[in-house]
Amino acid sequence: MRMPPVSPEVTEFRQQIREQRWSGDFAQVPSGFTMGTVLMLPEAMAGDFLLFCQRNQRAAGLLQVSEVGSPVPGPLAPDVDIRTDLHSYRVFRDGELVERVADISHLWREDFVTFTLGCSLTFEHALTQAGVTRGDGRVYQTSLPATPVGAFRTNLSVTMRAMTTPNVIRAIQVTSRFPATHGGPIHFGTPEAIGVDMGEPVFGGRPAIADDEIPVFWACSATAVDAAQAAAPDLLITFDPPYMLLTDQPVEASSVF
Amino acid sequence: MRMPPVSPEVTEFRQQIREQRWSGDFAQVPSGFTMGTVLMLPEAMAGDFLLFCQRNQRAAGLLQVSEVGSPVPGPLAPDVDIRTDLHSYRVFRDGELVERVADISHLWREDFVTFTLGCSLTFEHALTQAGVTRGDGRVYQTSLPATPVGAFRTNLSVTMRAMTTPNVIRAIQVTSRFPATHGGPIHFGTPEAIGVDMGEPVFGGRPAIADDEIPVFWACSATAVDAAQAAAPDLLITFDPPYMLLTDQPVEASSVF
Repeated sequence: MRMPPVSPEVTEFRQQIREQRWSGDFAQVPSGFTMGTVLMLPEAMAGDFLLFCQRNQRAAGLLQVSEVGSPVPGPLAPDVDIRTDLHSYRVFRDGELVERVADISHLWREDFVTFTLGCSLTFEHALTQAGVTRGDGRVYQTSLPATPVGAFRTNLSVTMRAMTTPNVIRAIQVTSRFPATHGGPIHFGTPEAIGVDMGEPVFGGRPAIADDEIPVFWACSATAVDAAQAAAPDLLITFDPPYMLLTDQPVEASSVF
Repeated sequence: MRMPPVSPEVTEFRQQIREQRWSGDFAQVPSGFTMGTVLMLPEAMAGDFLLFCQRNQRAAGLLQVSEVGSPVPGPLAPDVDIRTDLHSYRVFRDGELVERVADISHLWREDFVTFTLGCSLTFEHALTQAGVTRGDGRVYQTSLPATPVGAFRTNLSVTMRAMTTPNVIRAIQVTSRFPATHGGPIHFGTPEAIGVDMGEPVFGGRPAIADDEIPVFWACSATAVDAAQAAAPDLLITFDPPYMLLTDQPVEASSVF
């Protein structure tokens, strides 16, 4: 894909993050660009993780994979230095979360491979434009096992948005246009059918769902983070939700129709 | 749209109908071609009917409209003589069904305009290929009023297919590819929300719906036939369900992506 010139707004926003000047106010994030979930793993485990993503594509769609040791995450964000350009990072040692930091330059390793995965914030933009979401989705872990690869194994995570029946139909149409970032939902209605307790999201409280609304569930890239944590590399660094990587790719550029 | 050469299978099948040799066995209908609902009205009422179709596009998508007095229904079936090439016809006088006939040559009028409307048998083919329908749909009239135009007024009719939740998602994706023939569904789940009593289809009995299945409703061109009957022209001739017009257009040629 040919990329358009980087938006000055994106460049300026990245500069704010790099210099740790961004407050974390999402209203300041340039809208309309593909967002990515980011993980860094040692090269020794990268092959298995790549295969895990391939076998769990709905949840873990790969947008780009870096060269080994390169701080450039890939062609969708060629000006990014992944060591400084996320708002914050989670650091896991042997599968345990040990700290959250704003810069990982001191932790960088020459054997790191950086993975950028599709995130539902991408189609959230299209859903918002279609008027079918309130932007108050929740993340849940289901009882559905993801396809395991080696030590990478976990249950599927999903994002949930509640909406009326006509909006469910519209949301399926809108999100199916974005197969690289989860595509259409994997389930709606009955949360218990996929082992979800609506009162127990991974973040936040029980969502407000009106009587005429139906919960709709999309596969979520948190699945890949959970699998990587389970695989317990000596060092794993991930994005710190909800602070994704802002890529240069306009959301509509990843629509397949 | 450029049309491919007419399939010899289609030509042979039409010849059987024209000579009243077809038994009505649907297994013999060439598969993979767009099917149409057909109505013939006096020119004096054609303008209002055209507007009714435009204002109720989800139900009454126009595939083609003939020249006044021409027995050729339009570019999607240029070799058809509409007076002989349907299996059977319904004849309405002043809104009352007076007879069913296999040939309307003796009833033909120089002021007739022939309308061909998109029919869900078109996407039924795509749904069957996707493995999400049993082909035992039902037609219902809802309590939702269609947008009236002059004397053309009725409630919206729908076709219903029952399927599991993953297949609802797949069916919405598949049928949204065919906006000229109803596109995505207008409703699913709660039949009562659109005034449908599942035990009272327009044709056939109560459908078999398994515990894990959801009824899904698509707008139906029966809406246009009902409106035309309500408008009560002195002479109205329509197709006789389920015997649609077989056009030359491959189903996939009307897919928008």
